[in-house]
Amino acid sequence: PAKPSSKGIQVMPKAQTSHPLDPLSAAEISVAVATVRAAGATPEVRDSMRFVEVVLLEPEKGVVALADAYFFPPFQPSLIPRTKGGPVIPIKLPPRRARLVVYNKKSNETSIWIVELTEVHAATRGGHHRGKVISSEVVPDVQPPMDAMEYAECEATVKEFLPFMEAMRKRGIDDMDLVMVDAWCVGYYSEADAPSRRLAKPLIFCRTESDCPMENGYARPVEGIHIVVDIQHMVVIEFEDRKLVPLPPADPLRNYTPGETRGGIDRSDVKPLHILQPEGPSFRVNGCFVEWQKWNFRVGFTPREGLVIYSVAFVDGSHGRRPVAHRLSFVEMVVPYGDPNEPHYRKNAFDAGEDGLGKNAHSLKRGCDCLGYIKYFDAHFTNYTGGVETIENCVCLHEEDHGILWKHQDWRTGLAEVRRSRRLSVSFICTVANYEYGFFWHFYQDGKIEAEVKLTGVLSLGALLPGESRKYGTTIAPGLYAPVHQHFFVARMDMAVDCKPNEAFNQVVEVNVKVEEPGKTNIHNNAFYAEETVLRTELQAMRDCNPLSARHWIIRNTRTVNRTGQFTGYKLMPGSNCLPLAGTEAKFLRRAAFLKHNLWVTQYKNDEMYPGGEFPNQNPRVNEGLATWVKKNRSLEETDIVLWYVFGVTHIPRLEDWPVMPVDRLGFMLLPHGFFNCSPAVDVPPSSSSDSEAKESVISKTVQNSLIAKL
Amino acid sequence: PAKPSSKGIQVMPKAQTSHPLDPLSAAEISVAVATVRAAGATPEVRDSMRFVEVVLLEPEKGVVALADAYFFPPFQPSLIPRTKGGPVIPIKLPPRRARLVVYNKKSNETSIWIVELTEVHAATRGGHHRGKVISSEVVPDVQPPMDAMEYAECEATVKEFLPFMEAMRKRGIDDMDLVMVDAWCVGYYSEADAPSRRLAKPLIFCRTESDCPMENGYARPVEGIHIVVDIQHMVVIEFEDRKLVPLPPADPLRNYTPGETRGGIDRSDVKPLHILQPEGPSFRVNGCFVEWQKWNFRVGFTPREGLVIYSVAFVDGSHGRRPVAHRLSFVEMVVPYGDPNEPHYRKNAFDAGEDGLGKNAHSLKRGCDCLGYIKYFDAHFTNYTGGVETIENCVCLHEEDHGILWKHQDWRTGLAEVRRSRRLSVSFICTVANYEYGFFWHFYQDGKIEAEVKLTGVLSLGALLPGESRKYGTTIAPGLYAPVHQHFFVARMDMAVDCKPNEAFNQVVEVNVKVEEPGKTNIHNNAFYAEETVLRTELQAMRDCNPLSARHWIIRNTRTVNRTGQFTGYKLMPGSNCLPLAGTEAKFLRRAAFLKHNLWVTQYKNDEMYPGGEFPNQNPRVNEGLATWVKKNRSLEETDIVLWYVFGVTHIPRLEDWPVMPVDRLGFMLLPHGFFNCSPAVDVPPSSSSDSEAKESVISKTVQNSLIAKL
Ligand SMILES: [Co+2]
Ligand SMILES: [Co+2]
Repeated sequence: PAKPSSKGIQVMPKAQTSHPLDPLSAAEISVAVATVRAAGATPEVRDSMRFVEVVLLEPEKGVVALADAYFFPPFQPSLIPRTKGGPVIPIKLPPRRARLVVYNKKSNETSIWIVELTEVHAATRGGHHRGKVISSEVVPDVQPPMDAMEYAECEATVKEFLPFMEAMRKRGIDDMDLVMVDAWCVGYYSEADAPSRRLAKPLIFCRTESDCPMENGYARPVEGIHIVVDIQHMVVIEFEDRKLVPLPPADPLRNYTPGETRGGIDRSDVKPLHILQPEGPSFRVNGCFVEWQKWNFRVGFTPREGLVIYSVAFVDGSHGRRPVAHRLSFVEMVVPYGDPNEPHYRKNAFDAGEDGLGKNAHSLKRGCDCLGYIKYFDAHFTNYTGGVETIENCVCLHEEDHGILWKHQDWRTGLAEVRRSRRLSVSFICTVANYEYGFFWHFYQDGKIEAEVKLTGVLSLGALLPGESRKYGTTIAPGLYAPVHQHFFVARMDMAVDCKPNEAFNQVVEVNVKVEEPGKTNIHNNAFYAEETVLRTELQAMRDCNPLSARHWIIRNTRTVNRTGQFTGYKLMPGSNCLPLAGTEAKFLRRAAFLKHNLWVTQYKNDEMYPGGEFPNQNPRVNEGLATWVKKNRSLEETDIVLWYVFGVTHIPRLEDWPVMPVDRLGFMLLPHGFFNCSPAVDVPPSSSSDSEAKESVISKTVQNSLIAKL
Repeated sequence: PAKPSSKGIQVMPKAQTSHPLDPLSAAEISVAVATVRAAGATPEVRDSMRFVEVVLLEPEKGVVALADAYFFPPFQPSLIPRTKGGPVIPIKLPPRRARLVVYNKKSNETSIWIVELTEVHAATRGGHHRGKVISSEVVPDVQPPMDAMEYAECEATVKEFLPFMEAMRKRGIDDMDLVMVDAWCVGYYSEADAPSRRLAKPLIFCRTESDCPMENGYARPVEGIHIVVDIQHMVVIEFEDRKLVPLPPADPLRNYTPGETRGGIDRSDVKPLHILQPEGPSFRVNGCFVEWQKWNFRVGFTPREGLVIYSVAFVDGSHGRRPVAHRLSFVEMVVPYGDPNEPHYRKNAFDAGEDGLGKNAHSLKRGCDCLGYIKYFDAHFTNYTGGVETIENCVCLHEEDHGILWKHQDWRTGLAEVRRSRRLSVSFICTVANYEYGFFWHFYQDGKIEAEVKLTGVLSLGALLPGESRKYGTTIAPGLYAPVHQHFFVARMDMAVDCKPNEAFNQVVEVNVKVEEPGKTNIHNNAFYAEETVLRTELQAMRDCNPLSARHWIIRNTRTVNRTGQFTGYKLMPGSNCLPLAGTEAKFLRRAAFLKHNLWVTQYKNDEMYPGGEFPNQNPRVNEGLATWVKKNRSLEETDIVLWYVFGVTHIPRLEDWPVMPVDRLGFMLLPHGFFNCSPAVDVPPSSSSDSEAKESVISKTVQNSLIAKL
């Protein structure tokens, strides 16, 4: 029963406990899987179902607005959606929906299912699950991502294949327990790779008989064996022992375990460093909703992207909650290698679309992965056969001191004002085969958002013939070779700069700084100026970085101005970046055409999510995804803007990247540009130095005493 | 008396307590000043002496090696210099020397003095100072940097100048106490700026009558008044009231003091965050010598450069102490503005050479400027009249946690190894008029060195006529305008990659990644490779960044190889960068030709220190400094290499940069590249997560209790 609120707007009793953007709960995933399985026509169909991905089908933006305005306080009344007749008065939110990608292992068919999860929460309490299939659709000519279970089965299949065992014996390997078979996607090079078959092309490595508990098996690549596995039927369909390259000698520096287990000694002079927040963190978390300083947003997670950030907004005093973005995530990444030789030319992993950043995420450990006061979020998935699996402590939320925020010292008086910067970091780390990627979103007090990727893990190596060296990489150790490669990441940013619900008034402006012509008004030749160009259509908005013109892009609201009368905006500030160094006709670029530009801008469309299409694995369709969508050349003059920022790094391996590469970082920033009337960080309070010193000395003493006493 | 050491090498008793690279002590500065003053021919000459700079005259590299080997343990015996006849056996180190830049205020002459400080240390204890003039030399046609005393006198002079007071009254300003006169260097635009006169061209600002204790006076630029001051005689020599621009209205957002004093309120939700090192820091400091993890180096300081890092080396197990660099510092910076109008076209501050980064350094505050366990270093200078002044806590040395250092998780077992990164930061912060610059050198456990500049402070503004807007900048507030500008920094790196004493076996290689030609060995068109080019001569080594070819530079030792037989090296990895956007014929570029390339490489020469020459102020000599030195086109094939890395950022002001700009960062990295045989960070011990959690919880509880009890 509706009852009037104090402002005369009718407020409904909540029917939902989940926000429309909350990831599916374990219970919801179970219901969705059971519903789809029950809809299978025959027992055989039901048995053949493999659950590649089960995720929330994200609702329309209007539903989110409704939820934020009515059902999930404490949002601003200004957010209540309005029609001509006055505020919208909803009875309740629409039911949540799941979207499932199902692979039929028997028929080699991929299908997409939509399931409505009616009153799952109420029902699960009583033990009654209710789901309803809304639609199902077979997607022709695709192969969905590989699954961990397939990886394991593929390894077992290869290791039992007699010609393979024979080839390994030729290389002096009798013990199959030492052999590692890493299934890699085949990509698409010719009709032989067509998705009518589900294929993998494994890389082979071999551990030694050492007793190191976590020996680095990637240190001994086994070269020259060509294998293709049909992973639908789990049989080796191509096998050839093409070239006998001796196993590289066991590198004494290959391991990365603690000193005593790798024949070394660890440093003993790293003194402990603790981060203490005696009054707790400055953030508040309610379900998936995070509030910190003036920022608020929702945390989401998908098996493909990993962390998703929804509904990013800044609470700006009397202006209330000002949206910045609807949805931020990393939707794809590609790692193309530069060696044209077998097997390296096939290495161009699409780690999100062919595998999954989220489902390969780590369970993080306090004190090791993260310091300080941590709030962790768990993530729920299906495994291949439809069981629910949970990665505990999968997303890390914590605060960090980040050096000085701003400072000025008056040279006349010597008086200084200085503030320390605090940032809020949300992150996860995943492993895709040999490499690790950490994805971090940092929120700052000055309105800045930073996206940062950390790269670490083990190089993907090849073995060399004695005396051989290769133009296309670095010899890392005797007989061991690391080909040059690039790492590209695609951030998809569905922006909402100053957009109230049901508003879509954004545009993108490119800024280039230009040298002024010499002349009477520029007699000292010092002049330069920023030139702005509105990116009016999608084809005009395929752009590359240009540090020499200080090129950047501003996402502006065309209906909101700051105190100087300029449109409010956020600017995308590139960090270091590059473009593909492969030839423009490279085969993998037909699937990864989105790498050809650093920036793409599209008009929002809910099913345009993945820049290389939803199924890049074995994809025969040239330029699927972004490069095709933009051919519609939709207008970008005043609309709901999606930015696709593509950034990468060229990795020429160093000896120092072995056996585990020290973290390298790259990323970009979103900075307010005329969004505020002045620095939003001016109100950060000063630290009291004397206070801080006194407290720290008390803390230090107490800690020392207590540690001596208690530990 | 020499006595034989255990290894048969004679070791001398120490005659010095100062290392040859220690900055001058306060006592040494006093002696140097007194010695020079005493050498003045007449009382008039002595009275006219102004002491612009008094610094250590750095000794030859051989003397440093000698000191390190004999007098300042615990260095490696392998460092003892050798001649053909065996180890060198010194009696004692040569005396320390001071170098003084003296300006004769009467004669307008600048001279350079070298003073030998014989036994100053012994002598000062007994009260007897001894210095000896070694040389003195008048430098024609230069103007040394401006001094703080001149700034103050220039301001007073202008404020007492009747036509100026009249012009201010015309603008409604009667109270001269509100007026701020910032003396700026005139640069060199024509013969009128010749160094035969010592000139300043002040910018005028005016505070309001508010009672804010630290009102931001830069918020009201006074436009249209042309003034030139002869600061030798402290008289206004040119004055013209050219254009009446009304004072901008007092911007309510101009102040940056705590909330209650600026008419706002500060955030109250920043909870305390403490960094605790209960067992102390991991570094050891002995005088100016710093040891941390496997790094060691010496801290120095000059009035011009600020922080100097000497003798950087990495202790690499059985390989001992391996040098990386002799000397690292920032030797110049330039901030050219893009507006061709008065007074902005004159703004292109050479903040090191015209003013001084070191002598404008801050006294830092624990808890505000720096967190954690801090070791501060003081800095000593002369003031203009020769008195010794000390900036206490001028250089900050501390450790920081820096996120994950490396990680790998085995996908087969789920077992992970992860290490946390600790870094050592050495830094200082200075104010040059309105802007602040923080200069940071970070040392990492993986052998990386990062140079980072933090930019903050107050924008340099102009006032606009009502309704006016300008192509060359951003309107920041009504009537207030911030011209576009660039900030350039020059890092001078005197390298010593794997160079033992008296060795100079370095070369520089440029690396560009190239797309491979299509063809039979590249049928999938994926191939690319790194191409190396030795920079053989100085003219060949004028290079610019190129992110598209992943361009970087490697400093190699041509006599030392790693385990794969490649030369050992360190690579200079650019961060984001730019080039000047002024026209190539811009007047200021005649003094700043070094900005025309991002990289310069020279053969070491002890008097080639400042890329625009020692005295850029009013400098009429086109291309003095780097651009002239490289015309010698010396060989760089195997020598003592000095790298000059020039990097900058184009600053298009945002409303959010006002009233104090949130810190922006830029910089570059030096990374080992085949310097080590594998990652030097592999031996960093793991944090024990359970241990760390237990300890942190004990600490947290104890702290809370004790804070409640004691505070
Ligand atoms: Co890599
Ligand atoms: Co600036």
